[in-house]
Amino acid sequence: MSIESNLKRLGIILPPAPSAIAAYIPVKRAGNLIFTSGQIPLKEGLLVNQGRVGKNLSIEKAGESLEICCLNALSAIQTLVKLSEIKNISKISVFVACDPEFYEQHLVANYASNLLIGIFEEKGKHARSALGVSSLPLNSCVELELVVEI
Amino acid sequence: MSIESNLKRLGIILPPAPSAIAAYIPVKRAGNLIFTSGQIPLKEGLLVNQGRVGKNLSIEKAGESLEICCLNALSAIQTLVKLSEIKNISKISVFVACDPEFYEQHLVANYASNLLIGIFEEKGKHARSALGVSSLPLNSCVELELVVEI
Amino acid sequence: MSIESNLKRLGIILPPAPSAIAAYIPVKRAGNLIFTSGQIPLKEGLLVNQGRVGKNLSIEKAGESLEICCLNALSAIQTLVKLSEIKNISKISVFVACDPEFYEQHLVANYASNLLIGIFEEKGKHARSALGVSSLPLNSCVELELVVEI
Repeated sequence: MSIESNLKRLGIILPPAPSAIAAYIPVKRAGNLIFTSGQIPLKEGLLVNQGRVGKNLSIEKAGESLEICCLNALSAIQTLVKLSEIKNISKISVFVACDPEFYEQHLVANYASNLLIGIFEEKGKHARSALGVSSLPLNSCVELELVVEI
Repeated sequence: MSIESNLKRLGIILPPAPSAIAAYIPVKRAGNLIFTSGQIPLKEGLLVNQGRVGKNLSIEKAGESLEICCLNALSAIQTLVKLSEIKNISKISVFVACDPEFYEQHLVANYASNLLIGIFEEKGKHARSALGVSSLPLNSCVELELVVEI
Repeated sequence: MSIESNLKRLGIILPPAPSAIAAYIPVKRAGNLIFTSGQIPLKEGLLVNQGRVGKNLSIEKAGESLEICCLNALSAIQTLVKLSEIKNISKISVFVACDPEFYEQHLVANYASNLLIGIFEEKGKHARSALGVSSLPLNSCVELELVVEI
């Protein structure tokens, strides 16, 4: 199936691309790679689900937030290339703001992994890191960066 | 000396490759680069030395755990290319779950750096980052990712 | 304007390159990319502004420390290629040692972003991640890594 039909099947409408911020930009291409900036779960200009997993936020809420990050990242990539030009999702890094006693960052990260595989199928299979961090910009609960190959 | 003879000299037998996990994969190639997933110190299916450095775990234990991560990463890479096809170890990222008052992540990271240089000699010299993080998946004490050039 | 004249205009004299450390090296090239090691704010051999933002250190002090990291990174890159050979600053990762209640890592990161754009102009625009971490090597307040395209 095509990426377009996967997006339709999954009921996904990509958000408008994150706007270029003064001091840095949402995506940068280097040869056959595209690096995205770390995405936080901004939806229609608002940051959803602020807080820390294991303290005041569930895995599910953090996972849903990570899905928003993921769609923002794809939307940013789309300003450079069509999603169909993505040869592979190479690497994703998932940062989870959490309590020091929370050890299930991988369950949060699965929300992004499953979404990418749902959209890109075989090409969506990626290497991944998932970490717990003490805090993120604007009290975001998650942050996601992608490296994709075109 | 060859990589094979270095492994023998160092008494290293690479473990079986980490199995592919549902939502992501242990290694992904992008052109001349290979990205590994963040490796945790799984040995024969068990996670060794859970905990936090500076709280209930020594630098030595964390370092030995990192060596296990490193061998797992190489084993994963070996599912794509022979170790002798690695042109360079480009970059390693070392994440140490630790107490906020622990400041010697670099000493933990040295265990991976020294191992890589022991195995790959000049080609094993790499750029490196070492960070302290609040927690890691499954209460792992360390996590390691590699970028290698082939 | 040229990079040289930008450096002059900004009153910047690059420090001597960070010396090669036993177990790893300050920069490594992989094809058209250069990865730097995570830089900490060493100035003339001394680590400036140790501590944690939001606890005993201001955003401004952390930002100034990050500028030092940035110059160290450029100085390291200069051991491989001339700065004028840099085609693009691709990606920067900013790690801020901070209190778990500190949420303005992006304001610290802006110091590096603005410096890079001041020096490299359009080519200096980069993708970026900014994270809060619990602690860094040697009680450094910030750590910075760069990926550049040549």
